[in-house]
Amino acid sequence: MSRLVVLAGGVGGAKLALGCQALCMGDDLTVVGNVGDDFHHCGLRICPDLDTLMYTLAGVVNTETGWGRADETWTCLQTLADLGGEDWFQLGDRDLAVHLLRTAELAKGRTLTEVTGSLCAALDLPTRVLPVTDASVATRVISDQGELAFQEYFVRERAEPIVKSIRFAGADESALSPEVAGLLASATTEAILIAPSNPWLSIDPMLAVGGMREALRNAPAPVVAISPIVNGQAIKGPTAKIMRELSLDVSPLSVARHYRDVLDGFILDSLDQQLAADVSAEGLAVLACQTIMNTLADKKTLAQAARAFAADLRVHAKGK
Amino acid sequence: MSRLVVLAGGVGGAKLALGCQALCMGDDLTVVGNVGDDFHHCGLRICPDLDTLMYTLAGVVNTETGWGRADETWTCLQTLADLGGEDWFQLGDRDLAVHLLRTAELAKGRTLTEVTGSLCAALDLPTRVLPVTDASVATRVISDQGELAFQEYFVRERAEPIVKSIRFAGADESALSPEVAGLLASATTEAILIAPSNPWLSIDPMLAVGGMREALRNAPAPVVAISPIVNGQAIKGPTAKIMRELSLDVSPLSVARHYRDVLDGFILDSLDQQLAADVSAEGLAVLACQTIMNTLADKKTLAQAARAFAADLRVHAKGK
Repeated sequence: MSRLVVLAGGVGGAKLALGCQALCMGDDLTVVGNVGDDFHHCGLRICPDLDTLMYTLAGVVNTETGWGRADETWTCLQTLADLGGEDWFQLGDRDLAVHLLRTAELAKGRTLTEVTGSLCAALDLPTRVLPVTDASVATRVISDQGELAFQEYFVRERAEPIVKSIRFAGADESALSPEVAGLLASATTEAILIAPSNPWLSIDPMLAVGGMREALRNAPAPVVAISPIVNGQAIKGPTAKIMRELSLDVSPLSVARHYRDVLDGFILDSLDQQLAADVSAEGLAVLACQTIMNTLADKKTLAQAARAFAADLRVHAKGK
Repeated sequence: MSRLVVLAGGVGGAKLALGCQALCMGDDLTVVGNVGDDFHHCGLRICPDLDTLMYTLAGVVNTETGWGRADETWTCLQTLADLGGEDWFQLGDRDLAVHLLRTAELAKGRTLTEVTGSLCAALDLPTRVLPVTDASVATRVISDQGELAFQEYFVRERAEPIVKSIRFAGADESALSPEVAGLLASATTEAILIAPSNPWLSIDPMLAVGGMREALRNAPAPVVAISPIVNGQAIKGPTAKIMRELSLDVSPLSVARHYRDVLDGFILDSLDQQLAADVSAEGLAVLACQTIMNTLADKKTLAQAARAFAADLRVHAKGK
């Protein structure tokens, strides 16, 4: 039985996931993670968003950065730099162990879902983390500097290139993992939340997976998204910059319209209360509440509000 | 111009190589390394013998163990163990940087020879280190516990299984690298030394490379081997144990006979002086001198003795 399902990207999504975990203690929570950021680096399979989710939910994340591990050391990366190797991707010594173990287990023929499950168990996670798919779906950024792999754009180039469009290589041949497809179709799933992650870089690669949009439209549970845009700004990261580059208003309304076909409800920040009527006019139920998550209490409060909102929607017929 | 060529395995071979480097300062020395120990581990290409040679010659080796790096840290391996991963192979944090860089560079399509050259340059080596081949030649140990990959036998099982035979997977399809073939055929090469490495595990995989035996037999320079067996014992490692398991006398004479077809001269320890006549009866020139290398001075003295011995042989016609 899995009552709450959260679709999440990296740092921003992990905050909501942590709030849900605090709420669901002893209950069932599944976090479905993005794999569009995944890449191969020095022979290793690296899954930045899954790692951020796991580390955050296991309580071993570096809380200053929101990614990577606490008490990290950098001996390997420093040595790699000394040798003239590529050191733009932050490979901490502890973090490396996860990349090594994942790579070794995948080489044995296990699926990413299975391997992620083993890593979650090794990290004593109370929450299940699932990759959205076992296939390769790679976010590619078409920019003024040409087409870049996601990590090249995001980390190496610090998200500075101007985004013209985004594509998801492999999406057409991909399919939801059976575990994710089962959860979305399950009558015991009470709510499906789309975290306030970057819609274009973190959530779209999940929506691009074969069968995902249909699964959300057909889900018995209400689907509720939380706006990552508050008061004309992104909570973090390059979301607002990308929206401007894609000629979109930096507004929750743009996000609501972007997700429209898969949503039942939309949560925006109290600071954007005045936009509730416009979102409602799109045919979506709307909730305005505090969405900025600074403390664990903030995260839990937002998770609770989202779950209650979804429960209300569940009572009424789904209107998608 | 390359005056001295040393064929070497890991720790034992690196000692002689270091003595030759001390001798050849400002002169030209090439160390040809074994790749039979190479393996893939957690997605990384690991070349234990080449690494031991590079670290030793760069002065960054852990002098207590003879392998791995000095001032090493083990954060990644400890974390890997905490996660339940395989931790039998000692992956130090600094050492990992070399594996990562090598793997990344090979993935770009560069040869192992090129990548090893870059690593040597990054480590400021005065000496050239060349893999014997750019092909894959994997030492496989057929034992009482079945067939084992070399690192499984040597590290994971601590060389405890009883050796029945040894094979070199891929040897039939392999060829010397052009660089090594060129050196062995060169008239400017003054001597080719076979280091006192394990003949069956470290030197035989080099002799098994396509073209190696012929290249040594046809080399203008004399080929001289140094016995790893002294006074009925191996200087280090499982050489004596393996010889017993293969029903061979643990004697320099067994080693001389094993190498016979490619050698011009053989060096045994002064402690085995009484065997010189037997080795000579095999048609080989013989030198007895101190071969145990405890200090850098010992290493340099042996290198000098071997070079002088080869120079003497060079004056006379090669008798192979």
